[in-house]
Amino acid sequence: MVERTNYAGLIDEKYLNQEVTLFGWVAKKRDLGKLIFIDLRDREGIVQLAFNEKTDESIFNLAQNLKNEYVIKVQGTVVERSRVNPNLKTGKVEIQVKDLNILNTSSDLPFEIKDNVDANEDLLLKYRYLDLRRPKMQKNIILRSKILHVINEFFNDNKFLYIETPNLAKSTPEGARDYLVPSRVYPGHFYALPQSPQIFKQLLMGAGFDRYYQIARCFRDEDLRGDRQPEFTQLDVETSFLSQDDIMDLTEKFIKKLMHDILNINVNLPFPRITWQESMDRFGNDKPDTRFGMEINDLTNILMNEIKQLPNSNNDTLARAICVPNGASEFSRKDLDTEEQYLDRYGVKRLVWVKVDNDKFSGAGKSLLNDHYDELCEALNAKSGDLILMVIDRFKVVCDALAYLRVHMANLMNMIPKNDFKFLWVVNWPLFEYDEGDKRWVAAHHPFTAPNVEDEHYLKNGEDPHKAHAQSYDIILNGSELGGGSIRIHSRKLQEDMLKALGFTKEQAYSQFGFLIKALDMGFPPHGGIAIGIDRLVKLLSNAENIREVIAFPKNSKAAEPMTDAPSKVSQEQLDELKININDSDK
Amino acid sequence: MVERTNYAGLIDEKYLNQEVTLFGWVAKKRDLGKLIFIDLRDREGIVQLAFNEKTDESIFNLAQNLKNEYVIKVQGTVVERSRVNPNLKTGKVEIQVKDLNILNTSSDLPFEIKDNVDANEDLLLKYRYLDLRRPKMQKNIILRSKILHVINEFFNDNKFLYIETPNLAKSTPEGARDYLVPSRVYPGHFYALPQSPQIFKQLLMGAGFDRYYQIARCFRDEDLRGDRQPEFTQLDVETSFLSQDDIMDLTEKFIKKLMHDILNINVNLPFPRITWQESMDRFGNDKPDTRFGMEINDLTNILMNEIKQLPNSNNDTLARAICVPNGASEFSRKDLDTEEQYLDRYGVKRLVWVKVDNDKFSGAGKSLLNDHYDELCEALNAKSGDLILMVIDRFKVVCDALAYLRVHMANLMNMIPKNDFKFLWVVNWPLFEYDEGDKRWVAAHHPFTAPNVEDEHYLKNGEDPHKAHAQSYDIILNGSELGGGSIRIHSRKLQEDMLKALGFTKEQAYSQFGFLIKALDMGFPPHGGIAIGIDRLVKLLSNAENIREVIAFPKNSKAAEPMTDAPSKVSQEQLDELKININDSDK
Repeated sequence: MVERTNYAGLIDEKYLNQEVTLFGWVAKKRDLGKLIFIDLRDREGIVQLAFNEKTDESIFNLAQNLKNEYVIKVQGTVVERSRVNPNLKTGKVEIQVKDLNILNTSSDLPFEIKDNVDANEDLLLKYRYLDLRRPKMQKNIILRSKILHVINEFFNDNKFLYIETPNLAKSTPEGARDYLVPSRVYPGHFYALPQSPQIFKQLLMGAGFDRYYQIARCFRDEDLRGDRQPEFTQLDVETSFLSQDDIMDLTEKFIKKLMHDILNINVNLPFPRITWQESMDRFGNDKPDTRFGMEINDLTNILMNEIKQLPNSNNDTLARAICVPNGASEFSRKDLDTEEQYLDRYGVKRLVWVKVDNDKFSGAGKSLLNDHYDELCEALNAKSGDLILMVIDRFKVVCDALAYLRVHMANLMNMIPKNDFKFLWVVNWPLFEYDEGDKRWVAAHHPFTAPNVEDEHYLKNGEDPHKAHAQSYDIILNGSELGGGSIRIHSRKLQEDMLKALGFTKEQAYSQFGFLIKALDMGFPPHGGIAIGIDRLVKLLSNAENIREVIAFPKNSKAAEPMTDAPSKVSQEQLDELKININDSDK
Repeated sequence: MVERTNYAGLIDEKYLNQEVTLFGWVAKKRDLGKLIFIDLRDREGIVQLAFNEKTDESIFNLAQNLKNEYVIKVQGTVVERSRVNPNLKTGKVEIQVKDLNILNTSSDLPFEIKDNVDANEDLLLKYRYLDLRRPKMQKNIILRSKILHVINEFFNDNKFLYIETPNLAKSTPEGARDYLVPSRVYPGHFYALPQSPQIFKQLLMGAGFDRYYQIARCFRDEDLRGDRQPEFTQLDVETSFLSQDDIMDLTEKFIKKLMHDILNINVNLPFPRITWQESMDRFGNDKPDTRFGMEINDLTNILMNEIKQLPNSNNDTLARAICVPNGASEFSRKDLDTEEQYLDRYGVKRLVWVKVDNDKFSGAGKSLLNDHYDELCEALNAKSGDLILMVIDRFKVVCDALAYLRVHMANLMNMIPKNDFKFLWVVNWPLFEYDEGDKRWVAAHHPFTAPNVEDEHYLKNGEDPHKAHAQSYDIILNGSELGGGSIRIHSRKLQEDMLKALGFTKEQAYSQFGFLIKALDMGFPPHGGIAIGIDRLVKLLSNAENIREVIAFPKNSKAAEPMTDAPSKVSQEQLDELKININDSDK
């Protein structure tokens, strides 16, 4: 076949006066009687085709039949365009078409191929192959491909081995819900799709492949929220013989290359590193958006006397606040009442708010705070016209509420710069966290995370394990957790202690993780790693609004895929072979 | 942490007199009293460590504690080795150790870490992390990683986009058996793990991403044979606007780069291209090993009279043979009786064999063949001392039997050169093949394969579809199918005709593939692609005996994974959430 000269979207003035061959889709047609203009679209963009009745009447007549989304091949000469389109890379040229082949026609589409399309998401997903033709989606998928290539370059250059781990794995009770796959060969037995390659990548360290990476597909059967998908992709990395700092340095170098190669942005290294405690104190959460200030201040000492007189206060009660610069005039009492109602979900009974007005406070909290005007203004760096939002409650409630308010107010006040990329590390996480639903301590990361060396004693008998902190680290970008990792336990005894602290009996521990525990006793190297969510990374770098915009064939918010109609019913024969029945007793 | 200077296995004379830091495993220890030698092993190989009692007694004493598979860190000076080991890359040097850290100990292992290990496969798989420490396995996994990197380089350089397709997909009745995944959100509904990304990659062409590739995980719940795995990896490629020749050319360029970058072998392009019919006629199968000759010859015309007199012969009866050079003295009558028995599985009743002895034949077929001595010797290029093996039967029986005999005899006669890589294409396949089990015509590749343009009329009403040949092509290496592809159907009407020829009613066709059929009507470009099996490719390039040697964590021959014990039983709670029961009525 005659080769394509280049993509339509890349034909610029360098091709002037050259003959070119292009393939693509009819994106738009303007018929001016004796002259027809076509926007020819391919994955790289659009170029204008010109058909002139005088030049070749048969080609012109054929062009008259063209309709939107017809697939065509054209040959012609690149000439200057009379009216330059500065919005197009190809805007200075057009193609005088000498030959035209219609490769396929198109019937009418269910929606137009354009960025701001008027169609609901399920319709777009049902015709995903059309949805993906939209310029925005083309850019996202191409960006994703580039990011994956940068990953491969960087990790290969740094002597990492790409090793594939199984997708038909074993179900484990820790963590989220597994997707199960019935085994036909062993009726009543199931594989599980992996929630991450965690155990396999650790075993690869035990096997001596000291630098591993993988673009790994992971699966979690969770109740879906906005940005979650049943299957997702992570950059999965594990190393032997490296310290936490080594792994963070390496990750930073990767991010620096990525930002340079993808967005031509130079980021400065090292990224800020703050402890989990500091992150909670300054930002109220463990994934702070540091593109703007408005940090949380602790005012407990200043307000000690007032706190004591509040009902339900105790030694754990804290008073913390943010100061919204110039916020006083932006929010009415009614607005702030609405915010207070919203905060109910975090357990907040009362939002203490005041507006700073020269030498006094006004607003719902003024009687509580007015005695400390100078101290509070100094602590909060508040000035006249600012709005102070305070929550007085226990640590978790205060943090949750102020973390929300900080970002929410910043959005409303347009304080968050676009196209800014602020990375930071949150380190020194608690090893355990308390699951309020299950009323038990669970691993904050996973049961293989190593405690800080100086905290190992907490895991021994008689001490309180939940005081231990971990050699773990999360990398945050603009308020989103991009990824996280840890140094892992490589001692059999410590791993046994850890599982015991999580409530496993020795039998349970060995039945679930015996192969790993035993492996630690057979020359297992010190090791640690990191995993970075690819979907979220691409979303942040492409400025997409939703994670579904950066996945070629995502599931919808109900874990279904409207195009192929998955999941679907299957034949009784298939179920019989697997020796399973559908339990419809409660229908 | 102090950085590793380089891998132990890469410390050669370039490092002489330098201080180095190394991490690795104790592979061997020789204690000579006042001198201890250790083989330190890492993923790149082995280097010798020397501990001298005189140099540093405390380090020497520590070294006395070392046992096999201890994990250590050493610092020391690279010096010349008194007794050079020519088998090692590092064989001219050793490390005079100045500092030693024991990072982890090891208890006794269930088997030794060496290439020719005396252990059954399930034991090796149960301790796969130890199995993988063996030098051969390290090489295989490293080679696999390099191959994957070459793939990424080549396809990225050629403007291919890496696009991920779903693993939670829809079950389709065509093809092999699906692995199913019960949906919790939609009880009674199932996802299927994809047997290949075929439909998704075609839809990506419909979306305008005209060059796609992926390292894709695929799943088939088949009855396992030697070299099959429930999950496997393929290099999956699809393109728009390219012809069959274009795609084959591109694939050849990829193979050329691969062979050069991985094995430093220059292969000549283009690869030979033969039709399916020619392959069957010359080699008896569709994946010929062309590293040796001994091709099949048709002798039906010469033996026409003899054939007519045989019982059960008819117009379809063929006489074909191979000539084993110098085979006469190698095989006794008993040997050949054994072969004849073996051939029973192909439907062969009688193996006609003769030895060429100057001017006559001897052996079981002599009375049948002796009248045509000169003609047969000329046709078969046979000389005295050769062995002629002939099968007289219908096409399929003759082909199956002689394809087997050709390779079998070549192996026994040591005719197959090692380290030779013979690629070729088999093209122009039948579009359909007859499934003797199901007694129906099925797609030889899959239902989306395009017929040759001149054969399209066979699919119309009233003609015989199974006469059509396809725009399909398989790439063969040394008698193994490395991959295959085709030009796909991009016309709605033709796709409907194809599904009808496969026995689908219109309702069935639309219920299963309606989304694709409709898509073909909305500006679908001409497209085609190829898929190459990564596991088999790595196996062939690494000279591994079994595909399990090139997969980090394979399933055993019963689809189980002995290390983690997958598949396994799951809790009743998990089954209840999925609303499925195990049907143990027949236990």
